[in-house]
Amino acid sequence: MSVSLYDVSIPVMTLGLTNLAAILDKAAAHGEAKKVDPKAFGQSRLIADMFPLSRQVQIACDTAKGAAARLAGIDIPKHEDTETTLPELKARIQKTLDFVGRVKPQQLAGADGREIVLQFPNVTLKFTGLDYLRKFVLPNFYFHVTMAYALLRANGVDIGKNDYLGAIQ
Amino acid sequence: MSVSLYDVSIPVMTLGLTNLAAILDKAAAHGEAKKVDPKAFGQSRLIADMFPLSRQVQIACDTAKGAAARLAGIDIPKHEDTETTLPELKARIQKTLDFVGRVKPQQLAGADGREIVLQFPNVTLKFTGLDYLRKFVLPNFYFHVTMAYALLRANGVDIGKNDYLGAIQ
Repeated sequence: MSVSLYDVSIPVMTLGLTNLAAILDKAAAHGEAKKVDPKAFGQSRLIADMFPLSRQVQIACDTAKGAAARLAGIDIPKHEDTETTLPELKARIQKTLDFVGRVKPQQLAGADGREIVLQFPNVTLKFTGLDYLRKFVLPNFYFHVTMAYALLRANGVDIGKNDYLGAIQ
Repeated sequence: MSVSLYDVSIPVMTLGLTNLAAILDKAAAHGEAKKVDPKAFGQSRLIADMFPLSRQVQIACDTAKGAAARLAGIDIPKHEDTETTLPELKARIQKTLDFVGRVKPQQLAGADGREIVLQFPNVTLKFTGLDYLRKFVLPNFYFHVTMAYALLRANGVDIGKNDYLGAIQ
């Protein structure tokens, strides 16, 4: 037996983003109770030379959006990085979920063998669809979701592993 | 076309653990240069009520070990949680890599449909092999690897995303 590339990509990122949105809800409630500046969470960093929460959420979203589009062989929609508050970051996640949710399993048929090329300023990365998913998409996606979680957790928001894992049963 | 459950589990965790070991090497070099107490990194936490680095590494290892064993339908070896220094944590990773590396693709044939039962003190989780991998193993594995990275990064170790992603080309 075997699984499709869809099975281990789109639903995985959909669950992760859904959980991240629920975590931002808990952060918003915490912020309201503690009268936190609405932009403070978005600007929080683990260390000065690392991306703040807002950027972590944006990159998690863009990793999911880029993966869904590239693996389906369709254009990647452009989402501007303008979010500063938790409600805005939640809306960014919802916009991503809407796009990712429209990609159907049959659009990823054969995607494991499709050539995926990523152009960065200083490097070009070439993958098969399978390697793109398992060496780039999944580690990056979970990295930025976890970093967003870590920043909120370090700021005292009452979240735990169950919030991160979400509805797994 | 399709992929095997092996393709998106064992090599994924092998790469992640290999990268984590290299990150611990960088932390060890940093610790030596800065004359850091050998146990300080292992005890570092993001916030007081969260697991320290040593436990993050142990759980990342146990997630990989448990996944490889359960998906292959073999016994899970017991590794005691005794590590306190970076060399000890590296050895724990190597012990895990050795075990995971002995699991062969054919041992995971049909594993996507196999019933996996996880007994926790307060809850019993039941999964198909596929759901166990995508809803429990992958998010947990990357969570703890990323948290270990975050703790070292926040402690000033000179690591970046390339260390985390590792040899992806």
